[in-house]
Amino acid sequence: MENGGPAPIRCKAAAVCRAAGEPLVIEEIVVDPPKAHEVRVRIICTSLCHSDVTFWRMKDFPGIFPRIFGHEAFGVVESVGEHVDEFAAGDPVVPTFLGQCSDCVDCKSARSNMCSKYRFAVRPGMLRDGTSRFSDASGNPLHHFLGVSSFSEYTVVDVNHVVKINPAIPPSLACLLSCGASTGVGAAWKLAKVEPGSSVAIFGLGAVGLAVAEGARICGASKIIGVDLNPEKHELGRPFCKKFGVTHFINPKELGEKPVSQEILEITDGGADYCFECIGLAALMNDAFLSSREGWGKTIILGVEMHGAPLSISSHQILHGKSVIGSLFGGVKPKEDIPILADKYLNKELELEKFITHEVELTDINKAFDLLHQGKSLRCTIWMDKDAK
Amino acid sequence: MENGGPAPIRCKAAAVCRAAGEPLVIEEIVVDPPKAHEVRVRIICTSLCHSDVTFWRMKDFPGIFPRIFGHEAFGVVESVGEHVDEFAAGDPVVPTFLGQCSDCVDCKSARSNMCSKYRFAVRPGMLRDGTSRFSDASGNPLHHFLGVSSFSEYTVVDVNHVVKINPAIPPSLACLLSCGASTGVGAAWKLAKVEPGSSVAIFGLGAVGLAVAEGARICGASKIIGVDLNPEKHELGRPFCKKFGVTHFINPKELGEKPVSQEILEITDGGADYCFECIGLAALMNDAFLSSREGWGKTIILGVEMHGAPLSISSHQILHGKSVIGSLFGGVKPKEDIPILADKYLNKELELEKFITHEVELTDINKAFDLLHQGKSLRCTIWMDKDAK
Ligand SMILES: NC(=O)c1ccc[n+]([C@@H]2O[C@H](COP(=O)([O-])OP(=O)(O)OC[C@H]3O[C@@H](n4cnc5c(N)ncnc54)[C@H](O)[C@@H]3O)[C@@H](O)[C@H]2O)c1
Ligand SMILES: NC(=O)c1ccc[n+]([C@@H]2O[C@H](COP(=O)([O-])OP(=O)(O)OC[C@H]3O[C@@H](n4cnc5c(N)ncnc54)[C@H](O)[C@@H]3O)[C@@H](O)[C@H]2O)c1
Ligand SMILES: [Zn+2]
Ligand SMILES: [Zn+2]
Ligand SMILES: [Zn+2]
Ligand SMILES: [Zn+2]
Repeated sequence: MENGGPAPIRCKAAAVCRAAGEPLVIEEIVVDPPKAHEVRVRIICTSLCHSDVTFWRMKDFPGIFPRIFGHEAFGVVESVGEHVDEFAAGDPVVPTFLGQCSDCVDCKSARSNMCSKYRFAVRPGMLRDGTSRFSDASGNPLHHFLGVSSFSEYTVVDVNHVVKINPAIPPSLACLLSCGASTGVGAAWKLAKVEPGSSVAIFGLGAVGLAVAEGARICGASKIIGVDLNPEKHELGRPFCKKFGVTHFINPKELGEKPVSQEILEITDGGADYCFECIGLAALMNDAFLSSREGWGKTIILGVEMHGAPLSISSHQILHGKSVIGSLFGGVKPKEDIPILADKYLNKELELEKFITHEVELTDINKAFDLLHQGKSLRCTIWMDKDAK
Repeated sequence: MENGGPAPIRCKAAAVCRAAGEPLVIEEIVVDPPKAHEVRVRIICTSLCHSDVTFWRMKDFPGIFPRIFGHEAFGVVESVGEHVDEFAAGDPVVPTFLGQCSDCVDCKSARSNMCSKYRFAVRPGMLRDGTSRFSDASGNPLHHFLGVSSFSEYTVVDVNHVVKINPAIPPSLACLLSCGASTGVGAAWKLAKVEPGSSVAIFGLGAVGLAVAEGARICGASKIIGVDLNPEKHELGRPFCKKFGVTHFINPKELGEKPVSQEILEITDGGADYCFECIGLAALMNDAFLSSREGWGKTIILGVEMHGAPLSISSHQILHGKSVIGSLFGGVKPKEDIPILADKYLNKELELEKFITHEVELTDINKAFDLLHQGKSLRCTIWMDKDAK
């Protein structure tokens, strides 16, 4: 490179998705050097979040292929582009799908985590110029995903999408703060602001839902009701549930004709103070709404609707003092709040270990998909190099 | 009556609705004495709110006939039932469709106005025993409406549904605090908590919508955008709008193909901080949602959906930090907040006179319906006795 800048890197392994819903293929790819305001990160480990699966299945735009998925990760800065002062080679970092410019009215406001200078979108390229930094063995570009694309030994990320992380946190746990754990804990802590003694109902006990439980437990909720349909999850769920502070477990299939909301209304004597949807199905968003109490019941939408269906609720019932709020990343402002969550882990308040149920190497990444589908895993750590643990 | 309690009153005039959508008929009726925890009120004046119209048109339950409508009123306590200490004959009062027992967890909490001991419902009878205090000339019972039924010289109301009011306020203005003005002002002031400098969009410029404008003006909003479709309202609207602090008026018909939300996004540079639906149509609730800004935009639903249609919004867009909240009575707690609003009027902060555009006598009540339908009136004072003004 001119000016002695970083050169392209030939990566031995990246998991490329060639077409919607097809197993990922391990390929050799080339990762371009970071441009201005970008950093190139060597990924140490990554994990699979349900949002990867939702976009992996998506045939139409913003579903686009070939693409490198992955947005929950931990890595080390390998090199930086021009005008990057915030990071240097060697920094331990977590990339984040939500950016923060730290300069716009939203980034400066405590009540928003949606940067309004660089708006969130499911782009196929880099944030500033829309182009790709990835090319396959034939020299054809590969699309990015959510500004992260961590299913690769190396990736390039905009400075707005990286956060420095305390090296005292083990890589596989830091990785969780990159999406799932931050989203769930943040939703209880920052967005809902769950108070001691309050009642919480959580629809979907994946990593996001159980992170909500973890957040609610930390905030002192007295009733934490978990709802999950998957019988495997159910079996597996009970011990998990307990670990995460879930006080009541509901499997809708075991209720027969009785609606879940009716069960929750009874458990909470009128409805939960906070109901979280962590699945991504409009019908469950409505169930969550119906399970929230009149007067001040809040429904918090975290799930990304898998089929793009609208949220549809009773226009009359909402008049009874109910509200619905949605959020990306649980209201967490990446650069400010991830370090706070990291401290909560180091203080032993936030128990991140509980979220990791499996680990594989990148070459076995399709196993991580299978485990999530089958409801067998919460988070499966995907190691780039098993010796890096 | 035994024990010298109050006797039934033969009322010379009540406006009775005999069937859905039919003009009201002035009839002589009998109003029973108040039972325990009830007061009988001599209505001085009342006015027509769109919620009366919505239920007047309703053929199926909770539409029920014959019925005495009216829930925005001012009156004087005529007599009280057993166990009533809070009121005495001669007290100036406003009845309210929303009750407050002052004793349950909701009534005691600052964050709810939905009494959970006596839940809100559109009942055909009295709050505690479900029976009627009205009978017609043939002795057949007449149904109540929203616990108030003020289109009658006398009515019986539960103590939870009456608030004492400062006699310094003229009857026709106190009447407005009974529903429309409190709902709109409350929604801006208590529910949304509009901050100085914020932007507000209001869908529907009836009394409720313009009361939101009035509340937003008092809270120091810098942009108050009013949306109304009615061309008559439009003509009539511009001066009204100015009086109410509306800074931008949008008639969707004048925009051609351009969506209202697009226009509001441009005026506010990205969406309004607070959007209020004050019409009662699901499509407009979605327009309000689309007009709210990402990051922290709040949509406040006040309109009672006329056809019972659900609120349907994008499950993806709500993830961008948007929220929707609904409320009866704008979050106002009748017994605590109506006196505060009354003081705001007496301090010349809240300008109630602006809401009254017409007046009629009870015998001409159907004119008030016509004026509201035609979009010619905001509030039309309906006097029981023209000499009482
Ligand atoms: N808002 C955000 O920023 C954000 C961040 C991360 C993930 N997400 C979304 O959160 C959701 C959860 O993600 P995850 O990684 O925890 O997923 P996951 O697959 O690990 O968990 C989903 C859980 O929902 C359960 N479930 C599925 N259908 C159900 C039904 N009909 N009734 C009850 N339970 C049902 C499954 O059994 C599973 O336990 C996804 O929609 C994902 O896209 C959103
Ligand atoms: N939540 C509550 O506690 C509460 C209290 C009072 C009234 N309400 C409801 O608030 C709403 C307004 O009541 P109001 O008395 O002010 O009614 P109103 O009839 O005086 O005003 C409604 C306004 O909406 C306008 N409008 C109708 N259709 C429209 C459209 N498609 N686009 C734009 N504008 C349109 C009309 O021209 C009119 O100006 C009603 O739904 C009523 O039932 C609710
Ligand atoms: Zn994720
Ligand atoms: Zn920003
Ligand atoms: Zn009303
Ligand atoms: Zn109460």
